[in-house]
Amino acid sequence: MDKDSIMNALISRRRFSKLSATVGAGMVSAHTDPITPTAQMKYYYTGGNVKTKAYAAFDESGELRPWEFERRPVGDNDILIEIKYASICHSDIHQEKGDWGKVTYPQVPGHEIVGIVIAVGKNVTKFKIGDRAGVGCMVDSCLECDSCKNGLEQHCDNDQTLFTYGNPDNREPTSITQGGYSSHIVVRDHFAVHIPENIKLQEAAPLLCAGITTYSPLMKYKINKGDKVGVVGIGGLGHLAVKIAIAKGAKVYAFTTTAEKEQDIRNLGVEEVIVVDDLSKLQPYKGKFDYMIATVPEQFDAAQYAATVKPFGYFTVVGMGKNFMLDISNIVMSQSRVNFNASLIGGIAETQELLDFCSQTGVRPQIQMISANQINQAWKDVVAKKARFRYVIDAATI
Amino acid sequence: MDKDSIMNALISRRRFSKLSATVGAGMVSAHTDPITPTAQMKYYYTGGNVKTKAYAAFDESGELRPWEFERRPVGDNDILIEIKYASICHSDIHQEKGDWGKVTYPQVPGHEIVGIVIAVGKNVTKFKIGDRAGVGCMVDSCLECDSCKNGLEQHCDNDQTLFTYGNPDNREPTSITQGGYSSHIVVRDHFAVHIPENIKLQEAAPLLCAGITTYSPLMKYKINKGDKVGVVGIGGLGHLAVKIAIAKGAKVYAFTTTAEKEQDIRNLGVEEVIVVDDLSKLQPYKGKFDYMIATVPEQFDAAQYAATVKPFGYFTVVGMGKNFMLDISNIVMSQSRVNFNASLIGGIAETQELLDFCSQTGVRPQIQMISANQINQAWKDVVAKKARFRYVIDAATI
Repeated sequence: MDKDSIMNALISRRRFSKLSATVGAGMVSAHTDPITPTAQMKYYYTGGNVKTKAYAAFDESGELRPWEFERRPVGDNDILIEIKYASICHSDIHQEKGDWGKVTYPQVPGHEIVGIVIAVGKNVTKFKIGDRAGVGCMVDSCLECDSCKNGLEQHCDNDQTLFTYGNPDNREPTSITQGGYSSHIVVRDHFAVHIPENIKLQEAAPLLCAGITTYSPLMKYKINKGDKVGVVGIGGLGHLAVKIAIAKGAKVYAFTTTAEKEQDIRNLGVEEVIVVDDLSKLQPYKGKFDYMIATVPEQFDAAQYAATVKPFGYFTVVGMGKNFMLDISNIVMSQSRVNFNASLIGGIAETQELLDFCSQTGVRPQIQMISANQINQAWKDVVAKKARFRYVIDAATI
Repeated sequence: MDKDSIMNALISRRRFSKLSATVGAGMVSAHTDPITPTAQMKYYYTGGNVKTKAYAAFDESGELRPWEFERRPVGDNDILIEIKYASICHSDIHQEKGDWGKVTYPQVPGHEIVGIVIAVGKNVTKFKIGDRAGVGCMVDSCLECDSCKNGLEQHCDNDQTLFTYGNPDNREPTSITQGGYSSHIVVRDHFAVHIPENIKLQEAAPLLCAGITTYSPLMKYKINKGDKVGVVGIGGLGHLAVKIAIAKGAKVYAFTTTAEKEQDIRNLGVEEVIVVDDLSKLQPYKGKFDYMIATVPEQFDAAQYAATVKPFGYFTVVGMGKNFMLDISNIVMSQSRVNFNASLIGGIAETQELLDFCSQTGVRPQIQMISANQINQAWKDVVAKKARFRYVIDAATI
């Protein structure tokens, strides 16, 4: 894809102007900060639908193709982000393949999104043009209920949490939210976070789902220095769980079913890598851990893993398999006396907290850069457990 | 079955004597309390295997037939109980039908057992002849590990918890433990409990599994006065969970799939009976309860019920379905943020505590007396959800 294509992708149906054009008209006039063009910024938005280039799913095949579509105009509380990078989450694959229910196509996946703010609505004070911004798994909620007011927008009491792609949204020309494998995104300012300057944009992307999804429960269950923490499934989420837990001072035990990952996982700094080619490998760890988090994006024998936690401890599953279902042996749960729970991403303030935590502690995902035309192969590699540990799409190639 | 048959059932292979015979010889000589014959006591044991009459399963048909077998001699730490009543737990049916794995036949079910102590080993001080005694789901453990020493014999760290029927036990002539649908049982004294005088023996039986299994988690999760507690599945366990929770001051909401039970459940004193003919009936209760316990002895949609508990609250499953498996929707768990756990009966001291609690509070099971030749019909009725709420077998009819 050439530069002209990228430029066209941004052209709104009604009007557009280069960033070098006069600034001050329209919705951005209310913004009081001086607008300073940055090296990353290429264009400037002056209104109308946002023409967007993307890779989209058109059916349940798991194959994506280039697609052009329009996003809603930037509203008073919205920002427009020129996407620089989007990373690949196993959830993207489950969703687009229909593993989680009926899908409206075409649909653009992607909920680990980073870029540069190139326009802001008139009410926006959280961001200014040129800011580095990230968007994760949700793009709106009521912001008025107790959950929203308490930073739990993903649990909006009015059931108005709007997830980043595939959710019905009649403000959007395509009638659904469309994700981050694309050139631009329009999002309510509250649902974007600031990327600290010392985190590379491409390394920030995986933090916005994989990072917050593991950080949130790890904080909730108050990992203390020296605690023994088990992490099950060492992929995009799992390797960040490992790094975050180690940064919190925990001794981490990594469980994988992929023997080929052993050395790569060892390099993350874990105490032990346990290759679970048979569930009997879990036996020596029975009742050993202070806490365990499982990121496995498949149906698995959760109770057997839970039994490695001390009685009355907690075992959190954040991976979501096909149909979201887990098999649990109740007799094993009754013997282990472990509390099983699941956790759903994290709130916006907590996501910002995670980014600041990573900024301060040096926690970064281990990424592999790809161009858009490698997405289909990358999806296959994710399913085949070959990722080490997160594929990041260079949005300039979309 | 006539009285002679009952008498014969007690005759040991080697010797026996009537209670009126001279007392003082053999293993009972060490017992310092004077032995006072009671109205309930018929016979007196002087050694050898204990010939026992029973109803046993011979295959996976779920049909029981009369059977005579021998139990091990009364050891130094054992007591011999002449069984007066045994009640029917859905677990008996699952186990004997092979729902929980391979079964060694013939096998006598029954783990809600009450009777009169008719012999004691020389080391026994906990019981004396004539005492009212009960036996629940386990009959031995190491008694030396931390769990055993802390009253959690069902979680013996040395994996020596011996369940009341169907567990390998080379001390027994039949090589497995044999349960309470029988005339007598030999049990290590520690694993029997005292039945308070104000509880009728037949009413005590269901407390020994159904009672303790629901009491233990209800105590663990510290039900406070006025708490809203949900109980799912109102059978033998569920109706006792209701009564115990009400006795603790909770407002109880009962969930059943059996519309025919509605009035009988209402009579237990619940706030509401919710007939769940469709899972949508759970919707109004989302996030409402302080705690929920599910006693359903079948595979069911546990996550949907768990979602009726307040975020970060606890949902305990004590029912055990076929293969012990539960389906859990992880996305529903992640939305509810409820902790799921399972609980396995209760320890011996806690079982005694339950009996004392029932003695003091007046909590009693609602029972239906049957004779042994009605067991097979009763099993069918349990499966058909017709019990109100526990069938108790008069062991005199075995």
